[in-house]
Amino acid sequence: MAAGDLVELAKRRGFFFGSNGAYGGTAGFYTFGPQGAALKKNVEDAWRDRFTIREGNREIEAPTIMPEAVFEASGHLEGFDDMLVECPECGESHRADHLVEDATDVEDAEALPGAEVEELIADNDIACPSCGTALAGEPVEAFNLMFATDIGPGDGQPGYLRPETAQGIFVEFPRLKEYARGNLPFGITQIGPAYRNEISPRGGLLRLREFTQAELEQFIDPEADEPPLDRVRDVDVRLYPATEQEADDGGYLDTTIGEAVDEGVIGSPWVGYYLGVAQEWYERVGVDTDRFRFRQHLAGERAHYAADCWDAESEVDGDWIEIAGFAYRGDYDLSKHDEYGDDSFTVFKRYDEPKTVERATVDPDMSVLGPEFGGDAAAVADALETLAERDPDAFDAETVAVDVGGDGDAGETYEVHADVANFSIEAVTESGEHITPHVVEPSFGVGRTVQTLLAHAYEVDEVDGEERTYLSLEPEVAPQDAAVFPLVTNDDRLVSLADEVAADLRAAGLAVAYDDSGSIGRRYRRQDEVGTPFCVTVDRDGIEGSGPDTVTVRERDSAVQVRVPADELAGKLTALRAGGEFDAVLEGYDRVETDVETN
Amino acid sequence: MAAGDLVELAKRRGFFFGSNGAYGGTAGFYTFGPQGAALKKNVEDAWRDRFTIREGNREIEAPTIMPEAVFEASGHLEGFDDMLVECPECGESHRADHLVEDATDVEDAEALPGAEVEELIADNDIACPSCGTALAGEPVEAFNLMFATDIGPGDGQPGYLRPETAQGIFVEFPRLKEYARGNLPFGITQIGPAYRNEISPRGGLLRLREFTQAELEQFIDPEADEPPLDRVRDVDVRLYPATEQEADDGGYLDTTIGEAVDEGVIGSPWVGYYLGVAQEWYERVGVDTDRFRFRQHLAGERAHYAADCWDAESEVDGDWIEIAGFAYRGDYDLSKHDEYGDDSFTVFKRYDEPKTVERATVDPDMSVLGPEFGGDAAAVADALETLAERDPDAFDAETVAVDVGGDGDAGETYEVHADVANFSIEAVTESGEHITPHVVEPSFGVGRTVQTLLAHAYEVDEVDGEERTYLSLEPEVAPQDAAVFPLVTNDDRLVSLADEVAADLRAAGLAVAYDDSGSIGRRYRRQDEVGTPFCVTVDRDGIEGSGPDTVTVRERDSAVQVRVPADELAGKLTALRAGGEFDAVLEGYDRVETDVETN
Repeated sequence: MAAGDLVELAKRRGFFFGSNGAYGGTAGFYTFGPQGAALKKNVEDAWRDRFTIREGNREIEAPTIMPEAVFEASGHLEGFDDMLVECPECGESHRADHLVEDATDVEDAEALPGAEVEELIADNDIACPSCGTALAGEPVEAFNLMFATDIGPGDGQPGYLRPETAQGIFVEFPRLKEYARGNLPFGITQIGPAYRNEISPRGGLLRLREFTQAELEQFIDPEADEPPLDRVRDVDVRLYPATEQEADDGGYLDTTIGEAVDEGVIGSPWVGYYLGVAQEWYERVGVDTDRFRFRQHLAGERAHYAADCWDAESEVDGDWIEIAGFAYRGDYDLSKHDEYGDDSFTVFKRYDEPKTVERATVDPDMSVLGPEFGGDAAAVADALETLAERDPDAFDAETVAVDVGGDGDAGETYEVHADVANFSIEAVTESGEHITPHVVEPSFGVGRTVQTLLAHAYEVDEVDGEERTYLSLEPEVAPQDAAVFPLVTNDDRLVSLADEVAADLRAAGLAVAYDDSGSIGRRYRRQDEVGTPFCVTVDRDGIEGSGPDTVTVRERDSAVQVRVPADELAGKLTALRAGGEFDAVLEGYDRVETDVETN
Repeated sequence: MAAGDLVELAKRRGFFFGSNGAYGGTAGFYTFGPQGAALKKNVEDAWRDRFTIREGNREIEAPTIMPEAVFEASGHLEGFDDMLVECPECGESHRADHLVEDATDVEDAEALPGAEVEELIADNDIACPSCGTALAGEPVEAFNLMFATDIGPGDGQPGYLRPETAQGIFVEFPRLKEYARGNLPFGITQIGPAYRNEISPRGGLLRLREFTQAELEQFIDPEADEPPLDRVRDVDVRLYPATEQEADDGGYLDTTIGEAVDEGVIGSPWVGYYLGVAQEWYERVGVDTDRFRFRQHLAGERAHYAADCWDAESEVDGDWIEIAGFAYRGDYDLSKHDEYGDDSFTVFKRYDEPKTVERATVDPDMSVLGPEFGGDAAAVADALETLAERDPDAFDAETVAVDVGGDGDAGETYEVHADVANFSIEAVTESGEHITPHVVEPSFGVGRTVQTLLAHAYEVDEVDGEERTYLSLEPEVAPQDAAVFPLVTNDDRLVSLADEVAADLRAAGLAVAYDDSGSIGRRYRRQDEVGTPFCVTVDRDGIEGSGPDTVTVRERDSAVQVRVPADELAGKLTALRAGGEFDAVLEGYDRVETDVETN
């Protein structure tokens, strides 16, 4: 398939297209048309079924606009930047790191300091791709990718459109842990829009300024919680570990989740568990496993807090694109919000048995410290307390030295008589401790999944000597469950049965297209192109005779047709949508051998 | 029920709560917790099933950020304002019209000019509600309610978060009509976030800055298309027409959709059709019809282009709140975009038979007009053409007078010899004409629907001599389909059956809570409070003996319990979720008479 064929089909048949065409278009924004929105919704429902409902996780829905304080804590305000260079002539903005990567053999220019990228632009005579003007000497600036807005009137309050759905989960952890009654592990999911004000959006659904994420934040006690790895131990996966990517003759590792975790190829059993669940899910919704792999992040790609990261990648138009990420994020997210926010982002972990621990304490005699140290007396008392926790042995001596009065030079050292501190060791019984949960995050790009499914379902074959294009989408995700055709429009009985059949199927919750225009062959082609798995034709044979009315059902990929009683249709199609095989669900019904397409 | 009870329950049990509590909260933003997000999702799915799938309409998904040009066309840039007055002392912003309405007997202050509102503030000594400072003399300004942002780096392009999902549909009409192959009527739906930067957001889900809409834009040929009114002719509705609202002793009109349309109470059959569909839908998802009505807009409330408007209103905490609007919008939306946009927002309507029409034309002799009128010659030719269309009789005279050169004073009148114009009447055969479709718009607030369902489902009764609070939510929308309880946790066989039952139900796509903590009575109460319709308890009786394992199923509202074989459970609960009656679906199974709650 040529890369353009699918984009053309996507636009022509209503899967997706650039938004606001009547106003010249808006780069980085795509609209899902009727077919695309239905496919996307089905993908989201399938994700929800697998990652929320079946896992016993819970979904929330948080606003897309969030206040600045959240992104101060998360680090996005400071560090969510791309490198921007602007052409002095035409004013066009470019990703400076991409220009350098295209023009040199530097591979990860984003990781370089801005000054070094400026030098590389100058040294390599890099010019503006739009107008050819030399960019040497132009400043490379950090451009924050969050869309900013003002909340409320007047000066308002600065707000941002969330760059990831995850923050809406993290920021509400203090409440979410209550709903879990303080028990780990628990998982919270969210499906919704996220925003990145890209400097140079790419075409299609690949790098958009507004896109949909499906994220799961699995909160765990790193010392106690184990994933149910046995459920996915035997799942086959194709891994592309960091070591293989770095080796001269490196290649894929075809293995199972169980082996990969046992042998340490996948560092975290939790990450391994979700790779297994994801592999099964991708197969279920129709990803071609021969064009799919899990690639481990190289050391340089990982955030500093992420212990192990894998991306799910699919091959589309000859390129490998990232369609999901699986990261062990440690306690980074919750400890940041615990530091910046007013509530507690820890959970209380009860010990099996209360523990008795020895704790060093002081009870300084303020009637001595007050006169002796004046305004610094309270600070001296605090310093003694800190010292007792850190170095109880210091109180064995006759006098104790403590530093008081702030950081560095400003401080002063005071000598305190040990007796005055009233040092003692006490036995304390504790029932548990406050711990910061760790986070395992599977994060899916929904639009990129949709794009992958379309690319992997795109097929061309020959039917009745004619070339046809069809999308072999799984019935669970296909935009329409079925199409209903009255063979002719000039027979009232036939048309009224077709109307009735369509209404019945819709009442059963099935998405049904109705088409009465053009030859049956043309109608089949139209449905083939949007991946409708089953076409139902109401013909004269079906309404003649004394038996119950029948219709033909044609399976998309094989073009096989079967005659089915009209009143059994809704049940059969529901079973097919739920994953039943065509031959099994429609066993015992007559094949239609005369080709209805040529009628 | 006290107004605060439900808000407290909503927060405690995870339906919804103010966002970003750890950062002091953000007015106008709410997060749906696990229960609320599930309820909301179920309401959206039920809406999709009724207004998209069953109607044969199609859903799209457009971006939430849209460029300025769209809102220039739609009128939002110019006119989507609220009246703002700022306190000179404390800086707090207020809705000036609301202050006036609260302090005077003016009822619709929003409709007054700003200067008049300023006068009312001064004349009535209105003070800042926050700090008491007099607001007399403070300017009342128009504050645009759209959230603004910049698309792209540098100066960027101004963009706004859409104030309604509808614009994402209207703006893509040129493409959407192609997908409908140019045939009217067709309907396009969208469910998604919309944004209004409210000056003073209210509590709960009532007036938010970010909220979810479910909108349907039904595109029709006003001269040809009729709705399928017979489908809803007999639906009972409670109407509150404008005439009744204005009458001294006005009251409700309890009638049917058919009668209301026949008698002209509802002006547009299309609006009537969707009121009927909506009435059925609201009943299906659990709105209490005694606390529900359709209220017609008063003449002053309607937008100038809207021929007839009705709101669905529900009673919540003693107030009537708007939960949906149904408007006949004429050709306003599409003709605006046709005027401002580059593409065509009309459809070509083919006549049944080609029509031959007489058309007056001119073919002015430019070799005469040129020398005579110089630079104005082309304008004179245009003016002749316009005149021929408007007033062909004018060409009967010897000379024709045309105005040229712009509006008003600047114009000049020229006399042209009729022969020079080469006037003639030609017969033209036309196969159809371009028409601008009219729009009928049912527009639903999803959050307000959720709030209504919770308020109408909130019940308090007595079970086993104890007061209990429960939500009698319909199984189709309840956040969880079922809860599974092992009666005790110290019996491995019993716990493992409970695990298995929960996994089975989840595999069948049912949302299941699992709870093994506290007495069975407490666990029932917890589920009652979140409206879980069915609780499944795994007890010793069920695993003893030689028959197949059984469990008890308890119905929420009646507290009736029935013993069911474990392997039949998923099928039975699926049937109950789809709307089956408890007694009918579980007919023939034993009632549990000994109260399992007291175990």
